[in-house]
Amino acid sequence: MGKEPVVYLNGAFVDVDHAFIHALDLSVQRGYGVFDYLRVSDNRPAFLEYHLQRFERSAKEMRLFAALSEIDLPRIITDLIRRNKMPESGIRLTLTGGRSADGYSIGEPSLIIAQSPLQMPSADQFQSGIKLMTHSHQRQLPHVKTIDYLMPVYLQSVLKEKGFDDVLYQLNGSVSECPRANIFIVKGSEVITPGKNILEGITRKRILMLDIPGITIIAKDVHIEELMAADEVFITSTTKAALPVIQIDSKIFNAPGPITTKIFDAIQLSPVNV
Amino acid sequence: MGKEPVVYLNGAFVDVDHAFIHALDLSVQRGYGVFDYLRVSDNRPAFLEYHLQRFERSAKEMRLFAALSEIDLPRIITDLIRRNKMPESGIRLTLTGGRSADGYSIGEPSLIIAQSPLQMPSADQFQSGIKLMTHSHQRQLPHVKTIDYLMPVYLQSVLKEKGFDDVLYQLNGSVSECPRANIFIVKGSEVITPGKNILEGITRKRILMLDIPGITIIAKDVHIEELMAADEVFITSTTKAALPVIQIDSKIFNAPGPITTKIFDAIQLSPVNV
Repeated sequence: MGKEPVVYLNGAFVDVDHAFIHALDLSVQRGYGVFDYLRVSDNRPAFLEYHLQRFERSAKEMRLFAALSEIDLPRIITDLIRRNKMPESGIRLTLTGGRSADGYSIGEPSLIIAQSPLQMPSADQFQSGIKLMTHSHQRQLPHVKTIDYLMPVYLQSVLKEKGFDDVLYQLNGSVSECPRANIFIVKGSEVITPGKNILEGITRKRILMLDIPGITIIAKDVHIEELMAADEVFITSTTKAALPVIQIDSKIFNAPGPITTKIFDAIQLSPVNV
Repeated sequence: MGKEPVVYLNGAFVDVDHAFIHALDLSVQRGYGVFDYLRVSDNRPAFLEYHLQRFERSAKEMRLFAALSEIDLPRIITDLIRRNKMPESGIRLTLTGGRSADGYSIGEPSLIIAQSPLQMPSADQFQSGIKLMTHSHQRQLPHVKTIDYLMPVYLQSVLKEKGFDDVLYQLNGSVSECPRANIFIVKGSEVITPGKNILEGITRKRILMLDIPGITIIAKDVHIEELMAADEVFITSTTKAALPVIQIDSKIFNAPGPITTKIFDAIQLSPVNV
C-alpha cells in the first residue's frame, strides 16, 4: 500500500513516476496511437487473448505493428502483474506513433503497459442506472481502438453541468456507441446492438455469443427512434459489464430491466479466461 | 551545425534528446492537447501575436488555459531563438492535457516549445503546383487547433501509393480544408475560401485582409462542384504561403494561375510582424 506501481516502457520496468516518453512523440504532437484495456481479476488477465488480438489488429491498421512483432506481450503482462501485486486492477497497453523526424510521419513507436486501480461504476449506478446525453458525432476510424478521445474529454464539463454520466454518439439519427462502451437496446425478446461504425468491444462480443432461451441477441442498425422506444437500455465494457441506463436526454427507461439483469448475470458467470 | 536544438519544457530549456513528458499524459493516452506553429524569419517570430492569440484561444476552449496564465510566451520564444541560432526555422508550441489521476480528466498540462528546421514545399511544387486527394471527413472541433491529426497521418500511405501530395476534406459535398492548410478557389475575379467548419489559418486571415484592385476576396461556403469548376485553386499556410494546386482527384487545374501568383506576391510583401 502506498507503493507506486511499475510500468513497462520500451523493454524495461520503471516506477510509474519515472515513466516518460519523448515530448516530440507522434502521440503528443499528432494524437497518433492505439491502445487496449483489460481487467485483472484475482491476479489473472481476463480475456487476454481477445484483448491482445484487438491490440495487434489496431496496431496493424495504424501501421505500428512492426514494433510489436518481437514482443512477448503475455509474458510482460504476467511479469507486470507479479511485480505490482494489484490482484483486482486494470491494465492499459498503449502504442504510440513514436518520435518522428518530420513531426508527421510515423517514427519508432513507444510501448507503455500500465497497471492501475479499477475504475468501476458505483454500486448505485449498477442498481439504479446511469444517464446518457446524446451527441452528434461519429468516431473517426471507428473499428480501431485509437487514442482519440478528444471529444469525450472535451465534453466532460458539459456532462457535469447538465447532470449526465456519459455521452452516447449518434449521427443523422444512427446510433453508434458511447466513448468507452457499446450500447444495447431491448425490445420485446430482442436484444439489439449497433452493427457498424463502432469499436467492437470484448464484452459486446461475449454478449453476442450468449445463448439465452427466449432471447434473440443481434447486431444491426439502431435508429435513435428505436432507441427511445426501447423497453430497456444498457451499455457494456470491461469495467461496466452490462450497466443499466435509466435516462437518455429527457427520456426515462426502466432500469435495471429484467433482460438487462439476465444478461448481466450471464456474463458474470461466463468464463474469465478464453 | 550538428548541435541539437534546445526545447522549452515546463519552465526549463533542455536538449531536444532529453525532452520527455509523462507516459500517462492525456496527450499520449487520450490524444488531448492543442498546439500552434509559427515561422521564424531572420531570427524573428513572424506574426507572433496572431499565433499566440490563437494558441491561447485553443487552450481556453479545451480548458487548458490555466497552465498559460502566468507564462510569458513572447519572452520564452525570444530566449529560445537566441539559444538555438536557427534564423530560418519553425516553432511549435504544444500544450497537453497533462498526467491525469483517472486517465480521463484533465491534469496538469505540459508546455513544450520546440524549434526545428522549416519544412517548406519544394521549388518545383511552388512552380508546378501540388496534387490533392479529396477525402470524406470533417475535423472534430474544427475551430480549435487540437493535436488531432489521426486521419491525415493514417492517410499518408494512401497518398504516396496514389501519387497525391496532400488531402482535401469534404463532407457531403461541402469543402472545408486540408489537414494543415486552408484552401482558396478562384472564379473570374472572385477569390473564395470556405467560411465555416475550418481552422482559421493566419495566412488565410492575412489574405482575407488584402486589398487588391479588381479582385474580391471572401469567405463563404464552397461546394465540391464549385471547387471542380474553379479557374485556379491554391492552399495556404505558414510554410506554404499560397501554394498552387494543379490536380484534385482526376481534375487538372491551371497552376500557378495569374491570380494565385498575384496573391502569393502580395503576402510575400506584407509585413512580417504585426
